[in-house]
Amino acid sequence: MATAVNDLRSLVRNVVDFPKPGIVFRDITTVIHNARALRRTVELMADPFRNQGITMVAGIESRGFIFGAAIAMELGAGFIPIRKPGKLPAETTSESYELEYGSDAVEIHTDAIEQGQKVLMVDDLLATGGTMAAACRLIERLGGDVVGVSFLIELEFLGGRKKLGTSYPIHAIIGYDAE
Amino acid sequence: MATAVNDLRSLVRNVVDFPKPGIVFRDITTVIHNARALRRTVELMADPFRNQGITMVAGIESRGFIFGAAIAMELGAGFIPIRKPGKLPAETTSESYELEYGSDAVEIHTDAIEQGQKVLMVDDLLATGGTMAAACRLIERLGGDVVGVSFLIELEFLGGRKKLGTSYPIHAIIGYDAE
Repeated sequence: MATAVNDLRSLVRNVVDFPKPGIVFRDITTVIHNARALRRTVELMADPFRNQGITMVAGIESRGFIFGAAIAMELGAGFIPIRKPGKLPAETTSESYELEYGSDAVEIHTDAIEQGQKVLMVDDLLATGGTMAAACRLIERLGGDVVGVSFLIELEFLGGRKKLGTSYPIHAIIGYDAE
Repeated sequence: MATAVNDLRSLVRNVVDFPKPGIVFRDITTVIHNARALRRTVELMADPFRNQGITMVAGIESRGFIFGAAIAMELGAGFIPIRKPGKLPAETTSESYELEYGSDAVEIHTDAIEQGQKVLMVDDLLATGGTMAAACRLIERLGGDVVGVSFLIELEFLGGRKKLGTSYPIHAIIGYDAE
């Protein structure tokens, strides 16, 4: 398993100064470009959450969609897209979160969650955790039970894990302890 | 198979007047919400393209990501995201296409395609076909071989199939012959 993780880590492309100067962007497109790494990633992201009665996987637009639906299939669950405002066509519930400057929001179809439904949350990367924290609040407001949160990458030095709290297990395959 | 298709069709939610008055939006979130329907959709979208040496699946942001990565796994291929401008971090190649008013563009990482690589194109819905036609041009400009195009839904009355041309098979699970 350590080997598998190191193999995946070696496939992440580090793009300097994207999206702005001083940032090293961890590009996951080079991981999923590799058929075996794509499969291994989905398996590893799903592994801690097997046999826990999860019936829905929720993924956050856009890169969370790539992993979310595949993990849903891996777990025999359905998939719920969590999107930017105005994208979902039916009645939505919205949660806002703070950005460095200003705020943003995520939305879910209000009828996407049944009372007590066990939901796994998925995104590609944990940074400050604001978007995922808002996504978890959406599920809970609609009566769902967040069983866990799964990422491919965690930027540990940004403290997102703290923002997500201790209510549910947070799983990340590849961690970076410094930029 | 006819039954499976009708089952999927019955799960599509018709949202009237979205995104603007007079449009009936075919909402696929109610299909993928159902675990069995999600799996069946991915299988049916992949079926015509098995055993054809496809090594990459390209999906178009954002809903194409949901199906694309899952179909890539189903075919044992890697996944390539085709995105809106400015989203991909490394060097990109861009193709623009016309909208009713103005134009838009899609981008791909320039190093995502190897010469002669067999690629399956995936999106959720074929409407006028402008985005997908631009996406296919991207693959071909980079030396890839578009083996086929796969959709969950085709809005047949919009003539997108004509815009995509006859160079490759176009597959859609559910067709609508009128709005």
